[in-house]
Amino acid sequence: MTPGADGPSPRRRGRPSRTARSTGPDARARILEAARTEFAERGYDRTSVRGIARAADVDAALVHHYFGTKDEVFAAAVEVSFEPALVIPGILGGPSEDMGERLARYFIGVWENPVSRAPLLAILRSALTHEAAANVLRGFVLRRLLERIAAELDVPDPAFRAELAASHMIGIAIMRYVIRAEPLASVDPEKIIEMVAPTLQRYLGDR
Amino acid sequence: MTPGADGPSPRRRGRPSRTARSTGPDARARILEAARTEFAERGYDRTSVRGIARAADVDAALVHHYFGTKDEVFAAAVEVSFEPALVIPGILGGPSEDMGERLARYFIGVWENPVSRAPLLAILRSALTHEAAANVLRGFVLRRLLERIAAELDVPDPAFRAELAASHMIGIAIMRYVIRAEPLASVDPEKIIEMVAPTLQRYLGDR
Repeated sequence: MTPGADGPSPRRRGRPSRTARSTGPDARARILEAARTEFAERGYDRTSVRGIARAADVDAALVHHYFGTKDEVFAAAVEVSFEPALVIPGILGGPSEDMGERLARYFIGVWENPVSRAPLLAILRSALTHEAAANVLRGFVLRRLLERIAAELDVPDPAFRAELAASHMIGIAIMRYVIRAEPLASVDPEKIIEMVAPTLQRYLGDR
Repeated sequence: MTPGADGPSPRRRGRPSRTARSTGPDARARILEAARTEFAERGYDRTSVRGIARAADVDAALVHHYFGTKDEVFAAAVEVSFEPALVIPGILGGPSEDMGERLARYFIGVWENPVSRAPLLAILRSALTHEAAANVLRGFVLRRLLERIAAELDVPDPAFRAELAASHMIGIAIMRYVIRAEPLASVDPEKIIEMVAPTLQRYLGDR
């Protein structure tokens, strides 16, 4: 029943065969997408590189080739949700007096979108219950995301202030999307942005 | 080997016998203490009223008598960590221009103390991973803690603003004590209070 290696093989369970999809320029993106879904649905513990490879229809060796260990796939899956390389220049590059609002708007936008919210929730849950996932969040994500922001700030203790800003956003995400405390859970996102932007502005912009 | 009911009985495993301790005015406090420990060490799922009763050295019926269901024991165990009835009047009763600082100091104090931190972490973890625990947090704690605060505020949307303040404190707790992101994890608590107090003041005090 093994599909032949020399041509399209019959599809099983509605998925293209491994042979047809295991190469190609979008394999990396497909692996990341599968990793987001796997971590979101199964949690950190029960997600494996092998499972991600299966969901992405590639060989596990390719996952290791692109990303390394499970922790590194996890970090990459988190990072792709925030797209810091694309977003940070836009947030930090505009007029400095609106930076707080841009950051609040970006963060709330990421969480309002169910596609990016699911893996983020999974990551938060994993970090709160598994030391390994907390390690990844601490080591990779904070370094890649917050330190990049902090490096651009012209304030004392920029890393501390960037973490205070991040802590507020994380807390809002938990209260709004996990605990779903009313009225915060149902309020117009613009109202949150309006109240929170001056806080972020003060942390990140006031000397 | 059953201890007699008419006098001090030999201690087993270092604990007084059930007979000696199952009544008395401090049984309620002992149950709450046991509940905090059980929820902290075992998590929400694996904690039972029977297990709490065993740890408190009382009959399970007494736990039900004092608190009701497991969810209600959970809510009471959370509430005892915050002691809202004792604390809120002090926070809200002082000069209104320092309310943000008093609230920040109180909250950081609760989290800095390992005895009160452990059950709070357990509660947060439980709420992020179990809908039942999130329900309890939403229903009991927010209502008992945040609505009491909101009722005293002279601002528009007091409940929304109280939740924003709470979200910041929860996020700081997660970043500092769970993810342990540096430098936030090691910074002097006074430095956190200094930065955060004006934020809470603006949310809770500015019309």
